[in-house]
Amino acid sequence: MAYALFYWPGLQGRGEFVRLALEEAGASYIDVARGAEGHGLGVAAMMKILKSKTESNIPFAPPFLKDGDLVIAHVANILMYLGPKLGLAPKEDSLRYVANGLQLTIMDMVTEIHDSHHPIASRLYYEDQKDAAKARAAEFIQHRMPKFMSYFERLLTRNPSGNTQIVGDSLTYVDLSLFQLIEGLTYAFPRAAKKKFSDYPALLALRDTIRVRPAIARYLASARRIPFNESGVFRHYPALDHDA
Amino acid sequence: MAYALFYWPGLQGRGEFVRLALEEAGASYIDVARGAEGHGLGVAAMMKILKSKTESNIPFAPPFLKDGDLVIAHVANILMYLGPKLGLAPKEDSLRYVANGLQLTIMDMVTEIHDSHHPIASRLYYEDQKDAAKARAAEFIQHRMPKFMSYFERLLTRNPSGNTQIVGDSLTYVDLSLFQLIEGLTYAFPRAAKKKFSDYPALLALRDTIRVRPAIARYLASARRIPFNESGVFRHYPALDHDA
Repeated sequence: MAYALFYWPGLQGRGEFVRLALEEAGASYIDVARGAEGHGLGVAAMMKILKSKTESNIPFAPPFLKDGDLVIAHVANILMYLGPKLGLAPKEDSLRYVANGLQLTIMDMVTEIHDSHHPIASRLYYEDQKDAAKARAAEFIQHRMPKFMSYFERLLTRNPSGNTQIVGDSLTYVDLSLFQLIEGLTYAFPRAAKKKFSDYPALLALRDTIRVRPAIARYLASARRIPFNESGVFRHYPALDHDA
Repeated sequence: MAYALFYWPGLQGRGEFVRLALEEAGASYIDVARGAEGHGLGVAAMMKILKSKTESNIPFAPPFLKDGDLVIAHVANILMYLGPKLGLAPKEDSLRYVANGLQLTIMDMVTEIHDSHHPIASRLYYEDQKDAAKARAAEFIQHRMPKFMSYFERLLTRNPSGNTQIVGDSLTYVDLSLFQLIEGLTYAFPRAAKKKFSDYPALLALRDTIRVRPAIARYLASARRIPFNESGVFRHYPALDHDA
């Protein structure tokens, strides 16, 4: 049976980290909230689960994955579940905890990227918190982004199995998430990326090799890949971008 | 061999969620950074791992756990690893993903609690970002805290195995983390808690039963339990607290 992925339509957001793994593996999945309501899909089908008055296991927020009766919430949790099934997890059990730890660090960075444009309230518009956003984005570009990026660069170059993947000896979902992270940051902060990203040659090389993997290249060229836009996590607001 | 827990000394912080599980289970562990440097412990021992120039698997930040050669970072990852070993995870595999999803929601809330006093920069003092903190804390108290708390209350009361634990039919690390969350919020925001927490009777009852569990009660009365203070995640700044 196909996996059912539930995430807001119209933006890549956190759902994209899951989509990239499903696409790389060629897995059969339904992107439920992007489907037609007439076919029992759409946002209504997602809200039905989130607002259920009887279900015991309901997620706090999208994305979540349904595999049969099992409902799994949070990107890192979904990827830890899917990784071995999709051939995108390290083979060794101990390395799976390393992969999950790395994915959680990526998700922490994603939260900081989100908060760079929404430092006060997710519920309100960016325009309502623009001054705080400028301060937080400056902090992010100058301090946090280099801290995270140099960490990932360090781990990638130190992988005893080679720097074509960050953990173990084969591609994992963590590499796909790093690809998305670099693409997203380059979209959101082009000036900062231009100034700073040459410090991370191994990460850039990883990004380049993933971009041309056949399944990923097909996906990126398809209508299934939503373009980056100012509804997602990675938003390009020129007022927030500057030379690092 | 004893587990080695690595976390900043002098504050409960995120490390406390791991400590509570180790204490409830009566596990043998060393709280490394709180030990004496003369014995090869202390912050120096923690920094040695974080700043290693050769290790391939280094954590981004504390807390992390060392079990033999395995180094595991991030609270939810550590608890997912320890849970089954300590008898604090659901027995069913599928429920372990539910537990991990709940723990990740708790950790997301913890980040929001941290950011209520540090909305712009973790690196700087609260006093340097007080105006933004007031705005973010007001948002947290009015919108985010009720959203998270009513979610946990809903799941707790809907657990088909009874509302004395949030997942499955026995106590798990998630229950211990909920205890810590409620204790911490009550410390940080006493006015908001007084006004609002009676809306969550099942959570309060869970908190009360965990507080008197023998191993937890002994721990809370011991010097191993660091008191809440204004270095941790849960900080009591009267300027940020108000009636919900």
